[in-house]
This record gives sequence, structure tokens and C-alpha cells, in this order.
Amino acid sequence: MTTINVGLLGLGTVGRGVATILARQTPQLASLHLKITRAAVRTLTPKRQAQFPAIALTTDALAVVNDPDIQIIVEVMGGIDLPFALLKQALKNGKQVITANKDLIATHGQALTALAAKHHVGLNYEAAVMGGIPILRTLNTNFAGDAITGLAGIANGTSNFILTQMAAGCSYAEALAQAQAKGFAESDPTNDVEGLDAAYKLLILTRLAFDLNAKLANIHRQGITTLRRADFAAADFFGFTIKPLVSARRLDNQLDLTVAPTLVPKSHPLSGVVNEFNAIVLASTNTHELMLTGPGAGSLPTANAVIADLQATALALQDGHTPELAGLAPQPSTALDQPTRQLIALSTNGLVTGLDVATQLGIHGQIYASGDQLHLLTQAVDRQTIAQWRDALNHFVGISLQHILPIFSPDLQGTVTKFQTDEKKISFTA
Amino acid sequence: MTTINVGLLGLGTVGRGVATILARQTPQLASLHLKITRAAVRTLTPKRQAQFPAIALTTDALAVVNDPDIQIIVEVMGGIDLPFALLKQALKNGKQVITANKDLIATHGQALTALAAKHHVGLNYEAAVMGGIPILRTLNTNFAGDAITGLAGIANGTSNFILTQMAAGCSYAEALAQAQAKGFAESDPTNDVEGLDAAYKLLILTRLAFDLNAKLANIHRQGITTLRRADFAAADFFGFTIKPLVSARRLDNQLDLTVAPTLVPKSHPLSGVVNEFNAIVLASTNTHELMLTGPGAGSLPTANAVIADLQATALALQDGHTPELAGLAPQPSTALDQPTRQLIALSTNGLVTGLDVATQLGIHGQIYASGDQLHLLTQAVDRQTIAQWRDALNHFVGISLQHILPIFSPDLQGTVTKFQTDEKKISFTA
Ligand SMILES: NC(=O)c1ccc[n+]([C@@H]2O[C@H](COP(=O)([O-])OP(=O)(O)OC[C@H]3O[C@@H](n4cnc5c(N)ncnc54)[C@H](OP(=O)(O)O)[C@@H]3O)[C@@H](O)[C@H]2O)c1
Ligand SMILES: NC(=O)c1ccc[n+]([C@@H]2O[C@H](COP(=O)([O-])OP(=O)(O)OC[C@H]3O[C@@H](n4cnc5c(N)ncnc54)[C@H](OP(=O)(O)O)[C@@H]3O)[C@@H](O)[C@H]2O)c1
Repeated sequence: MTTINVGLLGLGTVGRGVATILARQTPQLASLHLKITRAAVRTLTPKRQAQFPAIALTTDALAVVNDPDIQIIVEVMGGIDLPFALLKQALKNGKQVITANKDLIATHGQALTALAAKHHVGLNYEAAVMGGIPILRTLNTNFAGDAITGLAGIANGTSNFILTQMAAGCSYAEALAQAQAKGFAESDPTNDVEGLDAAYKLLILTRLAFDLNAKLANIHRQGITTLRRADFAAADFFGFTIKPLVSARRLDNQLDLTVAPTLVPKSHPLSGVVNEFNAIVLASTNTHELMLTGPGAGSLPTANAVIADLQATALALQDGHTPELAGLAPQPSTALDQPTRQLIALSTNGLVTGLDVATQLGIHGQIYASGDQLHLLTQAVDRQTIAQWRDALNHFVGISLQHILPIFSPDLQGTVTKFQTDEKKISFTA
Repeated sequence: MTTINVGLLGLGTVGRGVATILARQTPQLASLHLKITRAAVRTLTPKRQAQFPAIALTTDALAVVNDPDIQIIVEVMGGIDLPFALLKQALKNGKQVITANKDLIATHGQALTALAAKHHVGLNYEAAVMGGIPILRTLNTNFAGDAITGLAGIANGTSNFILTQMAAGCSYAEALAQAQAKGFAESDPTNDVEGLDAAYKLLILTRLAFDLNAKLANIHRQGITTLRRADFAAADFFGFTIKPLVSARRLDNQLDLTVAPTLVPKSHPLSGVVNEFNAIVLASTNTHELMLTGPGAGSLPTANAVIADLQATALALQDGHTPELAGLAPQPSTALDQPTRQLIALSTNGLVTGLDVATQLGIHGQIYASGDQLHLLTQAVDRQTIAQWRDALNHFVGISLQHILPIFSPDLQGTVTKFQTDEKKISFTA
């Protein structure tokens, strides 16, 4: 069996994890004869090179991509433009490509997939979505005869960690500081807390689960920065936990795509996924409901996903066939507006009551008031109505609107949630 | 692309599901060109044949296995001896084999795997363990560079359904009747409620997760038939739910294998897996913790797993290479005795107190008494100590021992659970 040479682009958190796991050479790995021969980094020092005696380090990433002795390129450097250029070159050179880069795949996945198909090589990116959870391989190997009708998940560990701390009583600032101290959040956490990272992952999931090619602009995206302790108290009162969800619900070829802090019923397993853990629930015709939970990031969990791609690629190379492509040719999608229930969070001047607001706006639902905080749990409405409410609430004297949060419907089958009043709660009809 | 002919052995619950899904011909399935040409049944009538006009039904299973036009044999008939003989013949004939038969694979999996390797054909059995959950493929594709240290799961939907009803207040008899009414339990439920079905699945999981070849006799097996409502009340008081668990914990090449109704902390996600759902938690060095939840049985979920195997087999045949084998060459295992905490359930004559029992037997832990029911939550002990207790309790005047249940340690890393007293509970030291 001849050795398969691997070139790494990047030797940071994930890259080092890949090198560490491969160095362990379990019997299964040994049988694959994989060897990292070169790795590209930004900063090269003799000390750094000494840490990886068997790997030739270089600052010239293009030289790795053009190395004729290398069969597999693993991109774990991050960014979009540079890795795009490098991986295009790698594919044109006939090399198998593996990447952990969600931003790149969400943005240029379609072009790279087409290029890989043209050159009869594999393009795999299991690590790019929910690090340690083998969700892409599951989507590719388990649903050939099944139709996914909806999915929902926790795709950003940083946000989940922050909301878990807030549910336990922290303020947003305290929770963010804790996440930063633990290395879960970067010094500029914008991409995580504004839902952009999760949105990229949702785009990739959407492509594989629904064979539909959506864009960032198709996603209704809402960050977690406006949440306060009072929201968690209100959610708790109504029987929910607030989770940073991505969700996609299908009706024919239309999709409703949302990234938002969402109220999840406490009885639903997603509400029990805490701290930095990720999870995904798939609703489908045959399997009904499948849920996967695991670490969404971190050096070894993410590297393990890269190793799984390396195993698949190496087995395919040994057998002399083209590795299965991760993606299919996507079709255009149109946006769908599926009504959901909402929780409206308001501050009041003390003179205005929830009934005033509800009556004036024609909102049906339940009220939870505590101090100057007012929460209205509403009936299922469409996005146009929410926009109208938002507009009206912004002009309502005596209150200030904080945010409107969607409520997760465990029925992911693409149907409308029926609004039910609960006799034990204070209910009203405007 | 030439058509790949499939022969079904059995056209019952699972077999009909396979035929139904294949008949739908999704684009992904269509690209595989799979066609069921023949199917073996026990009872053949013209009416039955008319329901499957495209499939030639026969009562001669051997004729299907020997049909030179068939490339893939799917065994969904059940039993052990007959399917073993048929599949040996199929493998010798150079056919790819897929089966949903856990009893067969648990009993003769090693021999069939060796035979498949000898004849360079694939043997896949995703549907045999936890029907709709793609656990075997995950074990085979995600852990080449990772070391699994422990696993725990709910592998029998019937038992989980029964215990879920009992946790909600039903007696064992009521819960069993409900399971039978819903079609989850057979009229003779012995295999399910005595843990034999789960034990077979545990043997298969053990082979793939630890590369160790255990036997039924290596498994500490306990059924759910002795459970009473009082056990659920006691478990609840101590902060646990009772779940029908399979578990395997590794220390070097030693394994502790258990099938038993087990107390799971309410904070652990396994405790939230209810009704007929199955689940598995894998603890490993790289991924740390991965959990999969889904339907463990049923026509379409199980058939979907068969379809996933068909997809893998068809892709491999199209590429002209040997499909990846589901199993590795297993090594012998030795049994390990890892101490766990236990819940001892007793009936008393009213004169004997928990303290009497604990003092005389030297048991440390906590007591919960209600009516004539007494429950002792003990420290972590080894199996020899439990056997000694059992013996002593059987001779103790004034009590009758009902059962001793293990307590799940969420730390599956093969270490000993540290016993911690909880200040809010009645604690004692004998
Ligand atoms: N970290 C996670 O948990 C995780 C999880 C899932 C996906 N990912 C994805 O994996 C990728 C890598 O993440 P990471 O956390 O490992 O990042 P990182 O720790 O910042 O490592 C990046 C590596 O790439 C190298 N690099 C950057 N620009 C380069 C250039 N122009 N030329 C040569 N080398 C260059 C860096 O070199 P220096 O070391 O010299 O700076 C570093 O070794 C990203 O796309 C990320 O989104 C990460
Ligand atoms: N049902 C589930 O949810 C499930 C889940 C996981 C795994 N499995 C496994 O899948 C297998 C099939 O289960 P099932 O529920 O589909 O069983 P089933 O409904 O009883 O179907 C068995 C089929 O095999 C046929 N058959 C039995 N003996 C035969 C013989 N000697 N010659 C020819 N045909 C014969 C029967 O023919 P007739 O129809 O003429 O009787 C029937 O069509 C079993 O190994 C089971 O453990 C089942």
C-alpha cells in the first residue's frame, strides 16, 4: 500500500488537532497510510518547525497546493478569498480537498462543488458544520430515500453557552465575559452573537438537507444581544427555555429559514442541550425524528471530523474511485413565511398595561408582567403581521419595544402551529 | 448505468417498508438503479402477488439466494438458523448482503463477516441495531482516529415505552398492555422485557465500538418485570428516572457490559428519551460526547436504514470496489467489574427500618421509605459486594428483597463513580 501524502493549510487550533490525532496512528488510521508532509502557516520560526519534525512547514500556501507529491489538501486556515483561490487551484491540480471552513463553503460551496465534480475529485467539509457532530455524513448517507421536511438546531456553541449562563441568572455582559474567559468567544464576538456564524451553517445544512441553494439574505436573522434576564423569567413562566436556534421548514420547494433566540418548550430535548454543546433535529418522512448532539467546536472534536473526511477520502483513493461528493447540484429556492407564535418583550412606564397594548394592537395571547417588564405570548402570526406590530409598538406611547422572539414548534413537518390557550395561565382576547 | 437487482428475503413489516421506499424513486435513489426483482415469503397467494406486480414472489428463499441475476440480498425475515444458512450461501455466491437481523448478527456476525471478507463482498446491518438511528455507520466512519471509552443507550423501544408509562403512574401490567395495544410489544414480550433483545444489540455495538467480541454470558442482564411504582417514586425522590439501559465501559481491553433498568440522573439527556424512542451516548477521547436519538423500530424507520445500506452497496458496486465492511476482526474480551452505585428495593414487615438493614450489612448511602417499601441508595460497590448483599438480604428476617438496580454514571470514561452524599437528603453511615 503506498502512502497518501496530505498537505495542511493552517496549523492552528484545528490543524494541530489533525496532526495530533494522525500522529497517534490507531490501527484503523495506520491501515490508511496517511502522512502529513507539508503545512502552511503565517509565522514560521525554527522553534515551531522543531515541534513538528516530520512536517515541512512553509509560509507559502500555494507551494503546498502545487506540490505534485501531495494527494489531499486539508484547509484549516480560515478566511474566504485566500482559501477560495487556494482550493480552486488544488481542485484544478486534481487533488482531493477537505476543509473545515464554513464561511468559505457557505459562500463558494456551489462553485467548489462544481469544480470538484469537473475534475473528478472529492470535496468534503464535515468539520465546517457543528464540529464534532457527523451531521453532513448523516445527511449524505441516510436520506437517499427519505424526504426531510424540517430541521432545527443549535449551531453556535458560543451563543448557547451565553444563553445557558443567562438562564442560570447571569446578565448578558457577565455571560459573554465567562464565554471569553473560557475561550468560547473571541474578543470581537459579533459573528457568533449576531447569528452570522449560525447563518452560514444553516446555508450549508439547507443545501444538503433540501437540495436548495439559499443565500444569507433569505435567512431571517436575529442576534442574542438584546436579551435580558426578564426574558428568561418570562420564558420560564410560560414553560420555555430560550435557545439560539437555526431552523428550516419546508413546504414543497419553499423554505422558511430562521436564525434567532427562540423559545423551546422545556419538554423538548433541544431545551436540554446546554453550555457549548450543539445539536440538530431532523424531521423526515421515513425516520420521523432524528437528533444528534455533541461538541460543535474545539480542537479535537473538530479535527476528528476532518479525520473522518480523511478516512473516507483515503478509502476512496485506495479503491481508485472518486470519493462521494458532499453536495448535490442545488436548485434555486424561494422564501416561505410560516406563521409562528412570538414572545414580545416590552419595557413600560408603569401606566400602560399588557391589556392596553394587546387591545390596541389586536394581539391574542397571554401576558406576563414583572416590574417594568412586560411579555406578551402571542398567537401564530406571519412575518408581515410581526412587522406591523413592530411598527405600531415603536409608536406606542409609554412602552419601549425590546424585541420579538419566535417560539419553536416541535412539529417540523411544515404545518402551522395551532395556538392553544392554557387555562392555568392568564389569558386574554383583545 | 446497468440496473442492480435486489432479492428480498421476507416481505413483512420491514420488507414492505423497503419496497415502499424504493417504489418512491427519489432522484437520489433513481440514480442508483436499484430494482427488487424477487422476494421470498412464507405464505404466497395470488392476492398477495397482485399487491407487488413488479416483484416475483416465491416461497423458495434459496432460489432467491441462488438467482444469478441478483446482486444484492436483503434479509428481513428473522430467525437465526435459516437466515444464517441462506446468507452463507449468498456470500459464497458472491452477493452483497444486507440484513436487519440482530439475533443473527449477534450470534453469527463474526463468521459472516469473515465469509464476506473471503468472498470480497459487503455485509451491512445498519437496521439491526436501533432501527432508524444510523449508529453503525457513525461508528464505522467517525472513530478511525478516536478511542471510544464507554457507551450507554436505550436499545429496546418496548421497554422504554413501558418504563415511560410506569414513570407516569401505570403499573407494569397496565404499561405492558398499552405497549401491546400500540403494537410495540408482542404477545410474548419475554425477549424485550427480559433484556435479551437489548443484549443482542449491545453485543453488536461492542464489536464495532471496541473491536471486542463478547458473548451473551459476558453481559450482566436484568429485566424490567420486577419494577413497581414505588421504585419510580424512590428514583424520583433521589433525582433519577429509571431507563432500560445498555452500557459498556472500557478500561484497557476489559469491558463492563450491562443491560438493566438503570437510574439515570434527571439532568442527563438520556432521561428525556421517552416512549418507544431509542438513544445512544458515545464517550470518546476526541469527540468527548456524542448522542444520537431516534426511532429504534417501526416499518419505515427500519426500512430507511436498509435503504442507507443499499445506497452504500450500490455506490460501491457502481465504482467497482468492495463495499466497506461493517465490522473489523474482533479480539477476545475479558469481563471487567466496575463499581457502580445501586438502588436496593425492599418490602418490609414494618418492624424493620432501613437503618437496621444498612447497619447490619454495612451499606453506606441514603434511605427512602414509603409504606412497606424501603429503598436504599448505596455507595459505589463492585459486583461481588452486591452478590454478598443479595445473599444476606435473602436471609434477613422481616424484609423481602425485590431487586437491586444500578445507577448510571454520566462519566463513561471508565472511571469509578465517586459517591457523594447530598445534604438535602436523609443520609446515614452504618
Ligand atoms: N476552532 C474551532 O473550534 C473550529 C470549529 C469548526 C470549524 N473551524 C474552522 O476551521 C478553520 C481554522 O480554525 P482554527 O480555529 O484552527 O484557526 P486558527 O487557530 O486561527 O489557525 C489558523 C491557521 O492558519 C494559518 N494561516 C492563516 N492565514 C494563513 C496564510 N495566509 N498563509 C499560511 N497560513 C495561514 C495560521 O498560521 P499561524 O499559526 O502562523 O498564525 C494558523 O496556523 C476556520 O475556517 C474555522 O472557521 C474551527
Ligand atoms: N419490525 C421492526 O421494527 C424491526 C426493527 C429492527 C429490526 N427488525 C428485524 O427485521 C427482521 C424482520 O422483521 P419484521 O418485523 O419485518 O418481521 P415480519 O413482519 O414477521 O416479516 C417476516 C417476513 O419474512 C417472511 N418469512 C419468514 N420465514 C420465512 C421462510 N422460511 N421463507 C420465506 N419467507 C419467510 C414472512 O413471510 P409471510 O409474510 O408469508 O409470513 C414475512 O414476510 C427481523 O430480523 C427483525 O428482528 C425489525
